Amino acid sequence: MSADEKADVVIIGAGPVGLFAVFQLGLYDIHCHLIDSLDRPGGQCAEFYADKPIYDVPGYPSILAQELIDRLLEQVSPFKPQFSFGQQVVDVEPIADQGFRVSTHKGQVIDTKFVVIAGGWGPIWPQDQPPGDSAKPDPTSDWGVALHDGSVVADTEKFETSLPGIFAIGDACMYPGKVRLLLSGFHEAALMAQAVRRLLQPPKRETQLYTSSSSKLQKKLGVIE
Amino acid sequence: MSADEKADVVIIGAGPVGLFAVFQLGLYDIHCHLIDSLDRPGGQCAEFYADKPIYDVPGYPSILAQELIDRLLEQVSPFKPQFSFGQQVVDVEPIADQGFRVSTHKGQVIDTKFVVIAGGWGPIWPQDQPPGDSAKPDPTSDWGVALHDGSVVADTEKFETSLPGIFAIGDACMYPGKVRLLLSGFHEAALMAQAVRRLLQPPKRETQLYTSSSSKLQKKLGVIE
Repeated sequence: MSADEKADVVIIGAGPVGLFAVFQLGLYDIHCHLIDSLDRPGGQCAEFYADKPIYDVPGYPSILAQELIDRLLEQVSPFKPQFSFGQQVVDVEPIADQGFRVSTHKGQVIDTKFVVIAGGWGPIWPQDQPPGDSAKPDPTSDWGVALHDGSVVADTEKFETSLPGIFAIGDACMYPGKVRLLLSGFHEAALMAQAVRRLLQPPKRETQLYTSSSSKLQKKLGVIE
Repeated sequence: MSADEKADVVIIGAGPVGLFAVFQLGLYDIHCHLIDSLDRPGGQCAEFYADKPIYDVPGYPSILAQELIDRLLEQVSPFKPQFSFGQQVVDVEPIADQGFRVSTHKGQVIDTKFVVIAGGWGPIWPQDQPPGDSAKPDPTSDWGVALHDGSVVADTEKFETSLPGIFAIGDACMYPGKVRLLLSGFHEAALMAQAVRRLLQPPKRETQLYTSSSSKLQKKLGVIE
């Protein structure tokens, strides 16, 4: 069987943290395909509290969850991510030296170099066994990633799981000190992106570029010609 | 000699990360006093690129540095931080079992339970030896905090330095994977605040409150009565 599609990175979960991962990876020309069980981007933010204000997003004294999602979608738009909505990931199978084959419950198959588990559990619970079902199986245990109290264990340098090439960011991941805040998910996405960037494109020199000063990054964002 | 003032936490540096630390600590009724060598809040953001856009603040496709500072000031305003501008910290001296005595080059003395080194180096370089002077002394080495390549080593669970009770967040701190991004500083501030909160107020139960759902936090923010 051959894959329907290829991607540099498959992100499981299209909530705010998954979306921001697209931005961070996009800065380094790394293309993402997001899969979510919902029928639209936004994850829990859009599903459970779209019209509720959030007060602890840095720089926003108050922002409605849906507005945050809309702004994140605008922020990632230069990087044109692919989306597969209404699908759960049912299998992540290593391909020797080539990454992973990701399969959804609707039969979509994507070959990818890296997998990022982003956000909550929605995207990876089989549709007939929703979260809250005490007998729920754990798909990630089949993929071989180590868990702690039902969350995916990640390191704090690269946010990589126990399985090299699979990363975990946002509410799904766990490490000492972890707090389930959006702002932590954004940081986790940024450090994951640096790690993936180094794996894909070993840097000639270790210069960190900044969006506020790098014309190279600003061209990618379309804010300068 | 007695201290002029007392504070729960002295934050050295009133840039965006120091300001956001006020917010995170304020949620738990922890009061902050910020010291900065500049004459206004904002740190490097306000000093060097106030009118420049930043593109990688999550949820802001573009924001001017000064606008970000203004919004952070609005976000922390419910917590009424104290500010000491135009002052460098010249000494941080442990007080047995009581925290630290912080002294500035103008002779201000503040006793505090915890110290947070936030942001860049401006606030702690003696005025007559600015950063870039190759013969510059390192004030933090006198305070006993471990350094790596000139940055303050912090753990990734509490962002505490080698000296218990002194924390480091933002551009001044270093740990494996560290990238000098504002969004990482915000995460570091949040986890530091959780650590300080636990040290000051051992929780009866380990329930994490969220600004979007907790009426207790919303009352502190003044968004509900």
